[in-house]
Order: sequence, then structure tokens, then C-alpha cells
Amino acid sequence: MRAAVVGLGLMGGSLALDLKKNFLADEVIGYDKNEKHAQEALALGLVDEVVPFEKIKEADIIFLAIPVEGIIQTLQDLTNLPDTTTIVDFGSTKEKIVRSCPAAIRPQFVAAHPMTGTEYSGPTAAIEGLYYDKICVLCDVEQNDPSHLEKAENIFVALGMQLVYMDAREHDLHAAYISHLPHAISYALANSVLKQEDPKSILILAAGGFKDMSRLAKSNPSMWVDIFKQNRQNLLDSIEVFKKELRHAHTLIQEERWEELKKWMEEATTLHKIL
Amino acid sequence: MRAAVVGLGLMGGSLALDLKKNFLADEVIGYDKNEKHAQEALALGLVDEVVPFEKIKEADIIFLAIPVEGIIQTLQDLTNLPDTTTIVDFGSTKEKIVRSCPAAIRPQFVAAHPMTGTEYSGPTAAIEGLYYDKICVLCDVEQNDPSHLEKAENIFVALGMQLVYMDAREHDLHAAYISHLPHAISYALANSVLKQEDPKSILILAAGGFKDMSRLAKSNPSMWVDIFKQNRQNLLDSIEVFKKELRHAHTLIQEERWEELKKWMEEATTLHKIL
Repeated sequence: MRAAVVGLGLMGGSLALDLKKNFLADEVIGYDKNEKHAQEALALGLVDEVVPFEKIKEADIIFLAIPVEGIIQTLQDLTNLPDTTTIVDFGSTKEKIVRSCPAAIRPQFVAAHPMTGTEYSGPTAAIEGLYYDKICVLCDVEQNDPSHLEKAENIFVALGMQLVYMDAREHDLHAAYISHLPHAISYALANSVLKQEDPKSILILAAGGFKDMSRLAKSNPSMWVDIFKQNRQNLLDSIEVFKKELRHAHTLIQEERWEELKKWMEEATTLHKIL
Repeated sequence: MRAAVVGLGLMGGSLALDLKKNFLADEVIGYDKNEKHAQEALALGLVDEVVPFEKIKEADIIFLAIPVEGIIQTLQDLTNLPDTTTIVDFGSTKEKIVRSCPAAIRPQFVAAHPMTGTEYSGPTAAIEGLYYDKICVLCDVEQNDPSHLEKAENIFVALGMQLVYMDAREHDLHAAYISHLPHAISYALANSVLKQEDPKSILILAAGGFKDMSRLAKSNPSMWVDIFKQNRQNLLDSIEVFKKELRHAHTLIQEERWEELKKWMEEATTLHKIL
């Protein structure tokens, strides 16, 4: 089997590595519109060959590991594929992508969201085993042809992933609270601290919680602007919910209602039971 | 040397372990007002002996590894010590503690904030090496007798800590932004998500950022209410600054000002240069 990976950054590069390492493809070809990234990926041995975009259409399975706005554009350029070619996307949003997929290729397009990553990006960020023991959310699979779904599922399972099925609309709603909101908060916290504090104090006191809470703020802005764009309304709603919680805490602290503040914190610690 | 540890939880228990492991004390005695914790600490071998509170006064150095309000109270009960006994506190706030220290024992009281910890608490959370390669902030040391300061410094250095000196008021201001604000935000995020989302979705999507951002929300509420109480005004100010940043992001998303949103995110990613 020949696999093609479009986007040779953290997600695509790591996937290419694992496809080869686990003998899941005889050949892994890659494309990246950023020529420097393409050459880096080749030099790092992430892919066997870098090819022009048209050439990826010759693969048996094409993975789109690019920003979510790019996925929508690229799907429009993949309508003239053989109907045996499977397409898989790795976007962090799902509803707009699924809805934008041209009808002609909808049965062969598998909408996936692998729940993995690091705060780093680009080909040099690619690592082996990024997908192992992680969850992969597959959306609206009832719109897939079973042969294409199975081809994608087999690869994910062989990479060590646990499959979960979800409605695309539901996925985006949950992802707003559980993933996109935490990113928005982390960027806002990083900016608050960078504006108020000198680098020396940040270095000294970072272990007091800031290090964890600001890690996501190192995420690639181009990628995350696209995600926020595609999940705009859900994200705005989740920010409102969060602002209400923070306002409540602020009021309790301001009015020195310590017993109520403690109860509010105790509610949060029930998270222990889940994670 | 006989060392006494008051408070046998994560911080005190781990300290007791390391004092023994590194041969920094001939005997480590412990006290915890929670009798169950005291017995657990003894059973886990964290201390050589658990003793009544009065008995800790016979030690050469006393570590107060208890919530910050407890430190203020306990200092009032330690005024009748020999002037060779060193007292060290591990509180996450410093100004009120330093100011509340009775004048009679001020030269022998070393105000420390070891920048380490985990989200777990109690004697079972104690681990070896918790202090190794971490920063220890020492505050207002010009008010210390050099012999007491040196005794404490030698132990911290022997544990592998890097010492940093700071004014107590400055410490609390920096800690509000870099440590206390991230905790307040994490509690607020955890409550937002717990109220909106079902446990199953949280489990499935947690790797999308929530896991990192909610870790601090598992921190001990009793301990953190006390910290918020003692650093109330700085924390309220820092929450206002953060709310302004988040409001700005909300406006940019609402008004679809994506280029400006990307610039705002890029400012946050400059954190890379520091951490």
C-alpha cells in the first residue's frame, strides 16, 4: 500500500514515521506546501519521497494533517480521485469539514480527530509513537463507505489507538469546552503574565503552576486561529460560561466568603473521579 | 542534628524522607494535628517518630510545612524556643507570614517558598527527590541572624535546591500572577467543564488540552483558600488583568478579526523564549 501524507509537521511527520516503523505502508510519500518543511521532512527520513501535490492522488490512502481551513480547501482539489482511494483528515474541528466535503468523495472521506499532540510544531517536532495508546475520534461514519472506513480504522488500531465514534456537531460542542477553551485561556494567561512580569520572575516562579497552564500557549497560532474560526460560536459560548465561573470566584474572594470559595474549589476537585 | 517537621503531607513528608536519605539529620521527628495523617506518616516511614506539638520545640530546626494560615498561628506558639533553634516555613505566601512573626523569634525564622509540589496531598503523596533541582525562594533574609539563615541554606543546597532571594512583598505580587492566578483559573475551568460536559466526553477529549489545564484544580482546597486569603488583593488585581485579556480575545473572535487574533496569540508564544 502506498500512503500519502499532506502536511509534514508534528502530526503528519509523526504519522509518516509510525506508518513506516509498523510496516503499515510499502511506501510513504509526502507533500507540504512549505518547501522548506518538505525538504526537512525528507532529510529527517520522515517520508520516502516528497512529491508535487498532484502526485499524492496516486496513493491508496491520503492523510490530511494540515490546518483545518486548509483541509476544506484541499478536499475541493481531491474530487477526481479513483473511488478506491481513502482520504482521512486529522482536523481538530469536524462539523464544517464534513459539511464542506464534496458529495462525490464523501463516502471515501473519513473524518478523524486523533487526541494527541505536543505544543511543538513542524517536521522537527515529529516523534515516533505519538499516536500510541491515544484516542481517535471518528465522526459521522455512517456517511462512509464501509471499505474506506475499515481501511482507516485498521491503520488507527495498528498504531495503537482506541476508536471512539461521535456526531461531528457533538464533537465540536464538546471540543469547544474540553480543548479549544483551554487553549484560549492559556493564551490569555500567557499574555497577562508576559505583560505584568519580568522574565526573571517568570523563570523563578514558573513551577508554581504557570508552567503547566501556559504550555498550550506555545501552540502554533496559524493552526489555532483556523480552529477558533471553524468553531467560533461554540467557543464564544464556552468562554462566557468560563467567565461566569471566574467572576463568581472573584466575587467570593472580594467579599471574603471563604467557606463558599472552599466549596467552589471542592466541586472542581471532583474532577479527580474522572481524570 | 534533630529536625522536626510540622505537617506531614506532600511537602513535609517528602522533606522528612529527603532529610533522612541525605543524612542531613540524625533524627527526624514529626507532628501533624491530623492524627490519622501522623500515624500514616509513621507507618510509611517518613519520620522516625511522631510527637506531641510541645516536643517539636526540642529540635534544632523546625520546618512548618502546613497551610499558610496555620503557619501564622503556629509561629505565635513558638516564642519560647532556645535562640539556637531555627524555624523555616514553606508557605506559598510570604508577606503576612513575615509580618506576623513575633519579634522575639524573627532572627531565627527563615521564610522560604520551595517552588515544587504536585497536585496530590497528604502523607501518601510524599515522594523522594521532590526538592531536587528546584528553586527555593528565601524572603527578607536581612531580618535573619546569619547563623540561622546559613543552617537553613545549607540544608536546601544539600537537597539540591537553587536559592533565590526576594523581598516578601515582591514575592507575593509575582506569585499572584505566576502561581495563584493559574490556580484560580484552573479551578474555574474545571468547574465550567464539569457543569457543561458529561464524564465520558471529558475522558475522550481530555488530551486536547484540558488534562494539563485542569491539573492544578485537583489541588487541596483548604490549603488554597488560605493562600487566596493571604494574597487577596494581588490575586484580585491579577484576575482583573487576565479577564481583560480574555475579553479582548472574545471580542476578536466575535468580530472575526482573525489577523489581530493571530497577532495576539503570537505575542503569547514569545513565552518560548523564557520557558
